[in-house]
This record gives sequence, C-alpha cells and structure tokens, in this order.
Amino acid sequence: MNAHPQFAQSTQANMMALVYHGPGEPAFETHAKPEITAPTDAIVKIVKTTICGTDLHILKGDVATCAPGRILGHEGVGVIEAVGAAVTTFKSGDRVLISCITSCGKCPACRRQLYSHCENGGWILGNQIDGTQAEFVRIPYAETSLYPVVEGVDEEALVMLSDILPTGFECGVLNGKVQPGGTVAIVGSGPVGLAALLTAQFYTPAEIIMIDLDGKRLEIATRFGATAVVNSADGHAVDAVMALTQGRGVDTAIEAVGIPATFEICENIVAPGGVVANIGVHGHPVSLSLERLWDRNIAITTRLVDTVSTPMLLNSLKAKRIDPKLLITHHFKLADILKAYDTFGHAAETGALKVIIEA
Amino acid sequence: MNAHPQFAQSTQANMMALVYHGPGEPAFETHAKPEITAPTDAIVKIVKTTICGTDLHILKGDVATCAPGRILGHEGVGVIEAVGAAVTTFKSGDRVLISCITSCGKCPACRRQLYSHCENGGWILGNQIDGTQAEFVRIPYAETSLYPVVEGVDEEALVMLSDILPTGFECGVLNGKVQPGGTVAIVGSGPVGLAALLTAQFYTPAEIIMIDLDGKRLEIATRFGATAVVNSADGHAVDAVMALTQGRGVDTAIEAVGIPATFEICENIVAPGGVVANIGVHGHPVSLSLERLWDRNIAITTRLVDTVSTPMLLNSLKAKRIDPKLLITHHFKLADILKAYDTFGHAAETGALKVIIEA
Amino acid sequence: MNAHPQFAQSTQANMMALVYHGPGEPAFETHAKPEITAPTDAIVKIVKTTICGTDLHILKGDVATCAPGRILGHEGVGVIEAVGAAVTTFKSGDRVLISCITSCGKCPACRRQLYSHCENGGWILGNQIDGTQAEFVRIPYAETSLYPVVEGVDEEALVMLSDILPTGFECGVLNGKVQPGGTVAIVGSGPVGLAALLTAQFYTPAEIIMIDLDGKRLEIATRFGATAVVNSADGHAVDAVMALTQGRGVDTAIEAVGIPATFEICENIVAPGGVVANIGVHGHPVSLSLERLWDRNIAITTRLVDTVSTPMLLNSLKAKRIDPKLLITHHFKLADILKAYDTFGHAAETGALKVIIEA
Amino acid sequence: MNAHPQFAQSTQANMMALVYHGPGEPAFETHAKPEITAPTDAIVKIVKTTICGTDLHILKGDVATCAPGRILGHEGVGVIEAVGAAVTTFKSGDRVLISCITSCGKCPACRRQLYSHCENGGWILGNQIDGTQAEFVRIPYAETSLYPVVEGVDEEALVMLSDILPTGFECGVLNGKVQPGGTVAIVGSGPVGLAALLTAQFYTPAEIIMIDLDGKRLEIATRFGATAVVNSADGHAVDAVMALTQGRGVDTAIEAVGIPATFEICENIVAPGGVVANIGVHGHPVSLSLERLWDRNIAITTRLVDTVSTPMLLNSLKAKRIDPKLLITHHFKLADILKAYDTFGHAAETGALKVIIEA
Repeated sequence: MNAHPQFAQSTQANMMALVYHGPGEPAFETHAKPEITAPTDAIVKIVKTTICGTDLHILKGDVATCAPGRILGHEGVGVIEAVGAAVTTFKSGDRVLISCITSCGKCPACRRQLYSHCENGGWILGNQIDGTQAEFVRIPYAETSLYPVVEGVDEEALVMLSDILPTGFECGVLNGKVQPGGTVAIVGSGPVGLAALLTAQFYTPAEIIMIDLDGKRLEIATRFGATAVVNSADGHAVDAVMALTQGRGVDTAIEAVGIPATFEICENIVAPGGVVANIGVHGHPVSLSLERLWDRNIAITTRLVDTVSTPMLLNSLKAKRIDPKLLITHHFKLADILKAYDTFGHAAETGALKVIIEA
Repeated sequence: MNAHPQFAQSTQANMMALVYHGPGEPAFETHAKPEITAPTDAIVKIVKTTICGTDLHILKGDVATCAPGRILGHEGVGVIEAVGAAVTTFKSGDRVLISCITSCGKCPACRRQLYSHCENGGWILGNQIDGTQAEFVRIPYAETSLYPVVEGVDEEALVMLSDILPTGFECGVLNGKVQPGGTVAIVGSGPVGLAALLTAQFYTPAEIIMIDLDGKRLEIATRFGATAVVNSADGHAVDAVMALTQGRGVDTAIEAVGIPATFEICENIVAPGGVVANIGVHGHPVSLSLERLWDRNIAITTRLVDTVSTPMLLNSLKAKRIDPKLLITHHFKLADILKAYDTFGHAAETGALKVIIEA
Repeated sequence: MNAHPQFAQSTQANMMALVYHGPGEPAFETHAKPEITAPTDAIVKIVKTTICGTDLHILKGDVATCAPGRILGHEGVGVIEAVGAAVTTFKSGDRVLISCITSCGKCPACRRQLYSHCENGGWILGNQIDGTQAEFVRIPYAETSLYPVVEGVDEEALVMLSDILPTGFECGVLNGKVQPGGTVAIVGSGPVGLAALLTAQFYTPAEIIMIDLDGKRLEIATRFGATAVVNSADGHAVDAVMALTQGRGVDTAIEAVGIPATFEICENIVAPGGVVANIGVHGHPVSLSLERLWDRNIAITTRLVDTVSTPMLLNSLKAKRIDPKLLITHHFKLADILKAYDTFGHAAETGALKVIIEA
Repeated sequence: MNAHPQFAQSTQANMMALVYHGPGEPAFETHAKPEITAPTDAIVKIVKTTICGTDLHILKGDVATCAPGRILGHEGVGVIEAVGAAVTTFKSGDRVLISCITSCGKCPACRRQLYSHCENGGWILGNQIDGTQAEFVRIPYAETSLYPVVEGVDEEALVMLSDILPTGFECGVLNGKVQPGGTVAIVGSGPVGLAALLTAQFYTPAEIIMIDLDGKRLEIATRFGATAVVNSADGHAVDAVMALTQGRGVDTAIEAVGIPATFEICENIVAPGGVVANIGVHGHPVSLSLERLWDRNIAITTRLVDTVSTPMLLNSLKAKRIDPKLLITHHFKLADILKAYDTFGHAAETGALKVIIEA
C-alpha cells in the first residue's frame, strides 16, 4: 500500500480536457487535474478514449443530469497514476480498462449484478462526474469499475469494451436470448447495432438480418457477418423480414436506433415465443400494440448496460474470438478532439463508426 | 380436416348445448352430439364446466375467430365416452380434466412447450371448434389435451385447472418471475387476478399488493393472501404502491385487467430489474414510456396460457397445496346456463367469481 | 390419408438386415420387412445409415435389453414408405431424418422434453425393437421421432444428426453450460468427443482443450477447432490442464470415454462453479472425491440424449453453421456392412470416426 | 496481510473468547480485543452468537486450515463498534448480521456471486481468522460481509441467517431446484437438514420426505412441515422412498449428513431428470454408480454456501414468511459457552438443534 502523498498536495496541477459548457458548446481547454477524494478512488492517466453517441446527446442538451462544466467521456484505457488507501487490487503503473459503468460493488443493486442501477454509481462518468476525454480521470470504486489489461491485447480493441461491446451484447444479445440455430433481426446498423451483430455471433444463430436506411452501413453489416440485409427506406422492412423468415418472424428483434418507428418494426417481426430487446435511447413513448401482442408469448426488454459481461469479453478478446477493431474507422490526437467530434457527429458523410482518441 | 366417412354413424344423436348465434345472442338449445372425426380424438361427456371472461367477450362480438353456430366453453371435467383408434392413454369411462388449450404434441411449437401456438390447436375449443358448455364435447389430440383425474381430488376444484389457474400462474407468476422474498403487485382483483394471487403464493413472495377499484374484491384479496391492498378509485394507485415499497417499486407487476390505464400503472410501479407480466386481454394499444423505461432493465411479457403447468397444478392440488375452490361462488345446472351467464356477467352486483355448471 | 392396404397384406415381403445373434455374432441376412403395427407408425426405406459405438457394445453382449434376433442401428435418413392412420405430418415419399430416440410425445417425460425417458420409447431402436441397419425400418410414434429433411441439406451430414451430434451437444455442451469466454476440456477425442468439440463452438468458448491417448486423434481435434491438446498417455493430464488454465481449472469438463480414469480427470480439473458433464457410457462405478469436492460448488451431470436439440441442429446445418461431414471417414454399401463394422471396430488402426452405409 | 502500524493503538484492550488450542482443547479465556487493520474492516461487538457443526469438526482436529490459538465461531448478530476509513455503509452503533462467508466484493469470484470462493475471503471467520464466539470480532470487507439488521426482526431468529438457513437453502433447495408440485427427500434431519426443510417450503413442493435414524428428529421434521418421514435405521430407506413415490423416485434428493451411506441413498432415490444436492461435509470419497446413472439425466451438485440469498432471507424473515426460531432449543450466556458446546455436542441426548449464546 502506498503512502498517498496526494492527500497532502498543496498545488493543484492542470490538464487538457473536453468540457461541456451547455448545449452546442463543447470546449477543449485547461482543467484542474483530478485528485483522490475517497479511499476507493483511483486516478487514471488516459491512453486512449473514444466518443459515444450519448456524448452527442449531451451536447444537444438531451441529458438533464449532465451539468455545464462537466468533462465528457465514459470510455477508455489508461494507466493507474494513484490509488486511494483502500485500493489493493491496482497499483500505480497498472494498465486498466475503464468501464462506462461505475459500480460500488456493495449496494443491493451491485450485489444482484445490476451495476447499471448502483446506488453509488451507474452511468455517472462524463455525466454526473468528470469523464475520460481528458488527460486524467478520477474513477470512484476503482476496484469494481476498472479491469486489468490482459497482456498482449490490442488497446484500441480494448476501448471498444468500455461501453459499446457490452452494450450491444448485454442489452441486445443476452436480453434477446440469441441462441444457436435461432433467427435474429437487428434494426439499426450504426455502431451499437454492429456491436450487437458482432457479439450475437458468439451464439452462432442461423440467421442475422440487419435493417437500416443506409446502404453503406448494410454493406458493412454484410462484411461483419449479417446473413441478410434489409433496406428499410421503402417502408416495407416488416414485409421483407417476414418473407426472409417464411412468414414466421424472428426469435430475437434487437432495437438499436431509439425511435418509435424502429421499435414498431420490432413489434411486428417478433415471432411467438420471441424477444424484442431494446438497446436504443428513446426520447418519446412508443405505441405498444397489446391488442395484437397480448397472446403472442413475447418479452420486451430494456436495459442500461451493466458491464457484467466485461470479464467474458476480455477473455474472448484475448482468445481472439472477436475483433472489435472492425468498429474503428478514424484516429485522432486528444488535441484534435473537436475535429473527432465533428467526424463522429457527421457519420453519414464521414462513414465514421468509432473513433480512437489518443491522449 | 377431412370427413373420415368410415367413422360416421348412421344415426346422429342429439344433446343440449349453449350456442353462440352472434353478438348478444346465446341460446341453450338442441345440437348434434359430437362424433370422433380423427383417430386422435376423444368424445368427453361433460360432468362440470364453467364460464370464462372470454366467453363474455365472444358474446359481445369481440372475438373474430368465433363464428355463429359455435358451442361455447373451454373448461371442464368429464368422462371419456369414446376414443379414436390412435388413443391408447385413455379409455371409455376414464375421468378427465379438459385443457383450454388443444395441443397436438407434435408441431414445432408443441415440441417447444409453446402449446398456445400449436399449429393444429391452441385456443380453439369453444372458439374455432365446439366447446364444453354442452353435454358432450369432441377433444382433438386427446392424449395431449386431456389429463387423467387424480383420484380423491375435488372435481369442482379441478375445473379451475382448465384455464384460470394455469393462466394466472403461467402468464402472471411464471412470466413475472415471482420469487421468495420478492415484492409483487397485481392490478385487477377479478377471477384471473385472484388466480395469480393464489398461485403467486407457491413462491412465497414477501409482499403481494392487490390493486382494484372494487373494495369488495379487495376484501376477498386480503382473505386470499394479499399482504396489502390499494383501491385505485382515487387515481393514486402508483403513489400508494411506491409508498408501500419505500419508493422502490415492485419486482413483479401483474396486469390482470386488459386496459391501457392498468397497464400504465404497471409501467410506473415496476422496479429496476423487474418484470411487467401481462395477463389481460387487450383491445387497444397502450403507450409504452420507453423514454423513461429504456434504461430501467425491465422486461414486459405477454402470454396466452400454454397449460404447461397443468401437471404441476394437479400435483399441488392433490397435495392440498392450493385451494382453487376459493374462486367458486355460484352453482348452476346446465339447463340454467343462461342464468349462470347472467350471474357471471354481472359480477359487480352478484359478487360472482367463478360459477360451476353441472351437466 | 392413405387407405393402409398393408394391414391386409397376405404375403410378407423380405429385406436384408444386420441382425444380432448374440455376443460376437452379427449376421447380414434376409429378414422380414417391417409393417405398420400401430396408427402412429411409419415404415421408412433407409437411404443412409451408420454404426454407433453402442452397436459395438451390443455385439460384446454389454446391453442386456437387446435380445438375439434384433436388427441393429438407430441412426439414418430415409424415405417414408407408408404411414399409419393417425400420421398426418408425413406421407409416402417424404425424406426424413430418424432420431435415435423414439418419443411418444404424450407421456409425462415427453411433455417435459425428457424424451430419453419416454415411457413408450426412449432408446429402443436397434435395441428393444428392430433398427436401421436394414433396407426398411418401422418407426413408432413417427410424427415425434422423425424430422422432415430440409431441402438442400447434405444427407450424409444429416446422418450425424440422428445421434452423435445431439449426444455431444446435449450431454456435453448444454449440460456442461459451455459459454462465450469460458474454458472447456473434453476428455476423449473419439467421435462423440469430437461431436462435443464441434458443437461446443456454437457458444464460442475462449479455450477448448482436447485430451486423449492417441496423438492422431488429437491432430484431428486441432483441425476441428481445439485450442490446445493434451496427450494423457503420460498420466499427467490433470497437471497439463491446470498449467494451461493458470491453475484455475476449467469451467466445463466433458467426459467422453466412459471409464473411471477419465471421469477422475474431470473431477480434478473442474474449477469452482464449474460442471462435469458426462457423456460416456460407463460399465463401472467411479470414485467421487466428495471429501475434496463438497465445497467446490460444482455440478456433475449425466444424460442419455433427448434429441430435443434436433430442430436447432437442423437449422444450423441448413445455415451452414456446422459441418458434421468432418466426422465421416469411410463409406460402405449395405451389402458390405460387416466390413464396415470391422473398420469401425478397429478405429485405432483404420482411423475411422463415423462410417456411412448406403442402403 | 500487512501490519498497518499507523492504525495501531498503543494500549491493547482485552476481552473473553472461546479459543481453539488444538484437538479436544477449547478454552474460554482472555484474549486481545480485535482492532481495525484495514480501511475496509469493522469491529463488531457480539450480541448473540451460536455454535455450528463445523465448530465441532474443528475441535476434533478435522479442519486443517484452523490453527491453534484461533477464536472460533462464524455466526452472530452484533453492534458496530468501529469502522475503517473506507467503510461508509455502516457506522458505530449500527446493529448488524454477520455472514459466515467473508466476501471482498471485488474479486472475479465475488463478481460472479460465488462468494464462497472469494479470493480474499470465503469461509475464513473462526477458521483462518478469529471468529464470533467472543465479545468482539473484526470483520474484513465489512460492507460486503455484514447486513444491516432490519428493524423489528427478532435477533435470535436472525442468528440463524448467518449460516444455517442460507446453507440449507442455497446448497439444498436452490441447487436442488425445488419446485412447486415437486417431490423432495432430505436425508438427515439434523439442524441443516431441518433448515433445508424449512426453506424448501418457500417453493411449495407437493411432498417433502425426511429421512433419519432418529425417531425424535423425525417427529420434529413432521412438526416443521415434512409430508412423510422415513426411519432409515432398518436399512430400507430407499425402498420406503420408492414406495412413497409410486416407484418414481424424487425430483430433489438433499444429502444433509456427509457420509457415503447417506449419499448413496440419494443416488438411489433420484428420479430421471432430478438433482442430488449435497450439503453434507464429507470426509471420504463416495462410490458414484455411473454404470446405472449415466443415462438417468440427473445432476449432482456440491456447494459451500455463498450467502447470496441473505437479502432474500432477510426480506422473508421481516415479512414473517419463515420462522427460523423453530431451530433454537437452548440458550446460554457467553460465560457458559463450554457448557453450550457440551449440550450442542451431545445432541442425541440433549435434543439440541441450535443454541443461542448471549454475549
């Protein structure tokens, strides 16, 4: 255990960070370097981070919990700079993966593996506390919110394990009960839909149908393992899926967009006994056609990622059972993070999926 | 289905039956006695039957699949009168429980235990084929749609196992993942809500909160094992449930009414990680507040009863682990079935839960 | 439905078949052609069949239920020749896969999907009733014991779905709870161990370690997807597996041999929280080290295949998610079946895995 | 574990404690009062504790991990005296339940809810670190090893939740998949077998058969809810159970003794598709009859209690769904703990089940 001289630091150091100053107002600027504030904290020096669709939502002003002045970002890999007195699992110099979900490990929700609803954490990073789009970040409950980097694993691939891979996997694939021999449809071929596509293949379903408005993204989906693609631009996606499944519908329908129209496609293509697994972040209610669905023996699930699957994903990555780097399309230096936001925010034109930002 | 003239009897016998002649037009009249039409059929002489809420829906004209001329009823116990050539499990004289769900036992749905979606059956009795509110009924796929009556079991109690108990149990309790120590709310204290209440107690949850507009039904619920009751007449049921659960909500919310307002109560009281289990037969879409629920880690389930739990319920009944006779409030002779419909159809005034009709 | 003239057949036709005449006495000889004896029967003209390790056990006299005079064989694909009066799913001319397990579909065991313990079936084919190593076979409960051949699927591959693939999958992979990211060891690299290896990959475990005494079979295992192999000839297999797993042991240990020594390897390599899934047919008790295992939080499972996974395997085969033809090493004509037995029975010398016999 | 001199108090206080000085040598003597040695520790003033069968095993010298000089005891309720710097959930004066399992909450095993195999804890209390049969005890990882006492709950009942109730429930009932309508046999009607009997009733099985050599314990079992009892003194327990189950055997066979003979009863009474759930602490290997069991589709489970069910048991206790005080037969003051050991150690004569020791 180290001596924790940082508790006594008289002069506060500075660093560079991407700070949210209100809707439409990101700034890359100097900010106080974080410090240990609880014995269970760690300070992590960021090596690589990325931008999430949720960061764009914050910048639009859609996320009420995120106040101006906040450093954004909830993904990344880094190196432990300092740890609090109660931290014994990690020490200065250890390379770590940062989970997007902070889990205290001790509240009733955490003890049930429902880390997303941790009473002391959940999704707070880059939202209610300062995040990872910076040179340094403070991680509360470090021992249950960081993972040691397995030697020999590519660190860019690893950044995909902070959020997008467990999100696609837990909210889409696990909740959707994807099974060998089964039929899956994924509505939305953006980064999170593609993460669901990649991780669905852990269970070797017979068919994975990807649905999107964007032909280029459907091409990517085919390359990533989709067995069929449906362009929903013509408004006939439901018919197309029913035709592809001989009128039966799919065992698993994964919603990876977050609007009523795409959720309604899912309602219409799920087979009796199947699951609609929602991943999308919704801003509006949807119409649930219970007058048709009450006797269909289906389940509809929602989920904020718990990151309970992170150890499994780390094992799979180490064993080369998945290639998350497929999702990475662009690279930037931290100093160019505003350009990275621009590229990521205009994905239709830039073809961006995930961008890597090197600190 | 083909005519199998080889089975045809030269003289057709008659019997009395409750026949649907279109919306608002039930008739108790003479009808041809059913005959074996397939080697897997059985003819059952009805001993006791009952009326279901669904029968009232048919009489209102709400069930498009039920054509005028149909004998109603999908519940009952009886005695085997005759069996087809392929039936070896049952013989003339055997006492049997009739399942509301006809299961062929051989289609892909049946092999997955999804009998409700049997390609050759499902809920057809008293709907697409003639039913049990008669002196005799033909049961297709008899060996997988009838159950031998366990000696010593009360036959009135048994009638409750045709539909209402497995419905409350499978759609509400099993789908709702009721667990020891858990918290359950049941919205609707009518017969099916009370069936869910009775069968929820198989899993010994810590709390079962019953919600209804009718104070008399809530009194019954208390007698049947509810740990708390909430009268929703004041429009503040959600607040009341949240107060009873210290703001946490319930692990299982069971919808047992079938209207948007009651489903929305369920959406609002389910705790993170919980389940909304729908039993109600809905006539209209509901608004699903995904803008609040997308990150709540909940499941919403729908189900037409499969009657997969019938063997378990028979065991439980034989072992006196449940008392389904609690649900029976009135008795009638078959000749008085129109009076029985009247009593059952005016439950608010008559206090009827389930009525027994003796053939 | 056909007229069933066969009930009236006055002259019995003959066919060729492999008949067991007692230990060490197989004969390929003329035998009466089977006939429909129950309305649920089908007669299948065999197209392709194979030999199972169990057939060798019968020929050694190890299987008390199999009496002399019995036609052996419980695997194969064929064409429906005739069906009983109650069979509506299949008709003459349909191509079918024969399940090694006969399931009546109506007894309590079948209704629980425990077809292996069907009260009217189970493993009876080529054991208690005449089997598939013949020109024709009678299949009782045809509608729940045969599967329609999916068009375009290779019929030799399909023969592997009668027994060996569902056995490896259900007894080894499903019972063993193989999971993405997990670690699996399979003790025994014979046909059934290799079937477990192939089907384990449906779940994308991180590591699959194959253990055998025979270096050639370990080479095959590597080609089939093993991530590591251990030759147990030196008696140090346990140490080798512990080294490969950094002392942790495996999540799933699959026993695919059937002797105490290999079972004991499994006991010694299973990690806390793991499963020992037995596939092997054992002739002797084993020593279970409860003095070490009582606090290890493990499960040990046994299973006779239920063939509940056949529909899933058919889907997977159709979707080319598995290549069961990898298991086929030799081909014979039915007339040469004694030679096929010789080749299969001397696998160490011939390198035989599964042999195809064309009728 | 390191010395943390910074926490060291200059004057060490003393207390009374039951200390193990080697086989057959317990002593009630003065011992140094424990102190906080890590930021995650708590010091608990014991209010009530008890004696476990495992304590007797230690005193016989059977538990190699327990060195002379150790304070025994791993059960109890108490009051927080002091907490380490990282403990925020509890504060001085809080009443707490002590779990027999110490869980760090952060190692891979704990994150999988396999607290029994916690890399930093597990069953260490009164074994590898000083225990609860004393005036004070140090609890490492206090926030994940203690539970707040729910107001209004009887504290003697609560002591039963430290070990015996979760042990009977998790190792016997949960592992044994006890289900509504199912049939259960429990071999051994001592305290842990009775704890399994009490908690099995959470799932309302149809039948619970208790088996023991001691008629008085079987009388207690009947009072606690057994539906049938079998005295195994005549060596015919298997026949009796088969007769009680119409030759079918039981769905769940719980071993609650820990010797080969009782385990073998379980092997012989489990029905196809059933589970043998071992609770007993075994000192010798048992013979597993795989030559009979390989095709029976059974599971055999072992488990050291994880105490994952403690929150559920607390809820059930608070809701009066279980009455653990039924297990308490005797009361002693801490000063009389040697007499308590004597009473508990001669249960056959004294009729002791669990004894309460008041500190």
